[in-house]
Amino acid sequence: MRIVVDAMGSDHHPGPDVEGAVQAAKTWGDQIILVGKEDVVRSELSKQDTAGASVEVVHAPEVIEMDEHTRAVKRKKEASIRVGMRLVKDGKADAFVSAGNTAGVLASALFDLGRIRGIRRPALCTIYPVADHPVLLIDNGATADCKPEYLVQFAQMAVAYVEDAWGLSNPRVGIISNGEEADKGNMLVRDTYPLLAESDLNFVGNVEPKEITKDVTDIALTDGFTGNIVLKTTEAVASFLGRFLKQQLTGGLLNKIGLVLMIPGLVAMVPGIVLLAPSLLRVSKRLDYAEYGGALLLGVDGVVIVGHGRSNARAVKNAIDQARRAVESGMLDAIRRDVVERE
Amino acid sequence: MRIVVDAMGSDHHPGPDVEGAVQAAKTWGDQIILVGKEDVVRSELSKQDTAGASVEVVHAPEVIEMDEHTRAVKRKKEASIRVGMRLVKDGKADAFVSAGNTAGVLASALFDLGRIRGIRRPALCTIYPVADHPVLLIDNGATADCKPEYLVQFAQMAVAYVEDAWGLSNPRVGIISNGEEADKGNMLVRDTYPLLAESDLNFVGNVEPKEITKDVTDIALTDGFTGNIVLKTTEAVASFLGRFLKQQLTGGLLNKIGLVLMIPGLVAMVPGIVLLAPSLLRVSKRLDYAEYGGALLLGVDGVVIVGHGRSNARAVKNAIDQARRAVESGMLDAIRRDVVERE
Repeated sequence: MRIVVDAMGSDHHPGPDVEGAVQAAKTWGDQIILVGKEDVVRSELSKQDTAGASVEVVHAPEVIEMDEHTRAVKRKKEASIRVGMRLVKDGKADAFVSAGNTAGVLASALFDLGRIRGIRRPALCTIYPVADHPVLLIDNGATADCKPEYLVQFAQMAVAYVEDAWGLSNPRVGIISNGEEADKGNMLVRDTYPLLAESDLNFVGNVEPKEITKDVTDIALTDGFTGNIVLKTTEAVASFLGRFLKQQLTGGLLNKIGLVLMIPGLVAMVPGIVLLAPSLLRVSKRLDYAEYGGALLLGVDGVVIVGHGRSNARAVKNAIDQARRAVESGMLDAIRRDVVERE
Repeated sequence: MRIVVDAMGSDHHPGPDVEGAVQAAKTWGDQIILVGKEDVVRSELSKQDTAGASVEVVHAPEVIEMDEHTRAVKRKKEASIRVGMRLVKDGKADAFVSAGNTAGVLASALFDLGRIRGIRRPALCTIYPVADHPVLLIDNGATADCKPEYLVQFAQMAVAYVEDAWGLSNPRVGIISNGEEADKGNMLVRDTYPLLAESDLNFVGNVEPKEITKDVTDIALTDGFTGNIVLKTTEAVASFLGRFLKQQLTGGLLNKIGLVLMIPGLVAMVPGIVLLAPSLLRVSKRLDYAEYGGALLLGVDGVVIVGHGRSNARAVKNAIDQARRAVESGMLDAIRRDVVERE
């Protein structure tokens, strides 16, 4: 498999991007194509142990910065994101991975790959991090303004992907709403509800955020604006609670005395803590974006993964793994077969 | 001050509702009017020590259940919520408090109190629980489908309320969006942005969920669908993380052995934990709906507070306190003066 990785993607590019790519090449033996400013990429690459890794560099003189708009993306034809997309379009690679500007990746995917014929709008999906079981959240930011028929296609694409990539047949689809009853929701949800109910999807109705965390649905369907807000609220709350707890525990003088008094106890607890460590690690892993890698863009004519801007090398490697699995699952063919041809 | 309390409101009514009302009457000396099935309410009241509390009962033979729709609310003219609203409408009370069906309270407020003349749509507001400083989230569920001019009025009403009730002049207004840049958002946000920017409000632009938790805005403005999803996602994430941590720590056999090994250490830590207790308490209080009481309904012609269905007596008492402060702040006059007359 050949995977293109945007070397100029993450906030701290090219370090994490190049390191994650090299690790992926070594782990899975895939061919990695790094796109970016050649001298910068080669210089970073020289710091890595690339023995046994199949890595090539394709020069892209321009970079799309984090705050650049669609207009800039359109103009910068030689930016790493756009050069990478064209490698996929031209059949020279099987997937594209970038931890760069999401709007930029999206715009470039639409310009250079285009939509799968018959797909109305693209959608980004990701595994929702705060749940006991895997839930695919779709759309988390590709299409902010949706119509009911877009949402129905998002659900169909998600089902095609989940069936092939997760091996889960007939996954449950719930639509995110402000109440469980069928008449709850904004106009978009209320108009989409009957279409989903009449479809052959395994539709479980409206789901509230608390139900997403429980085992009520496999796919949590929503428009790109709401999905993005759900994901960002989740990150904000988890990060705030961690920060708040830390600050409260280390803040005042009395707290400091309290912590000092706790030291002998903490020492006595060491054997217990060692046994508990794997559990505590599972808690923090749960919210670590490096673990869940990136978001998969559905509906465009190629496999595209958008990583978190704050990605480290491990997150980039995991995003590459997501791309590999999406290619292996035959996602594009599944969408053509299950969504487009059945309409 | 005379405050009507729906005795048939909370999930476990009439216990928490009546107890909270009696406590409020004793604490602040206000006159409380309990509405509900008279025999049920009097029976509950007889369990309370009402010495020194001014509490009367007004009979309402019907109850609006948690899952009933607007149609039922319209029909049930003698339900506790509707009888209570009419006491406010007729000038026999200054405010109405219910921990009942939010949609029912809202519908009843519109039927029986009506909107303040000139106000386009009502909005529910509440203090967002996960932030270092007070942030008023508006709308969190009254008007799911909004137009830009509704949102501008929500912001103006929130400013009028915050200025009078919090004593904060010219509070900052941010609109919740999926990105900070001015061109981010769904169509509603993008269309509302220029109206806010041109207004005389202290508009700070788009705010992402993580910024709500920081000291970036005093008012977080959004439509009732998105606001409700933000609030429910916040509750779901906090509750999941607590549950997950607990389960991970007490789950497997190794964890149990770990906890047993930790006991001597925990004992040694007692003095430190005692000193830290107030900090830990602040963490849990932060997310305790009983602390922040209920949501204030802005835009209807009366002071109405909607409590959480799961309210206990303390939450009901705090919701009554919110109602008292809204009445004292002269909120209705402020909205008439600052929002309606200036248009």
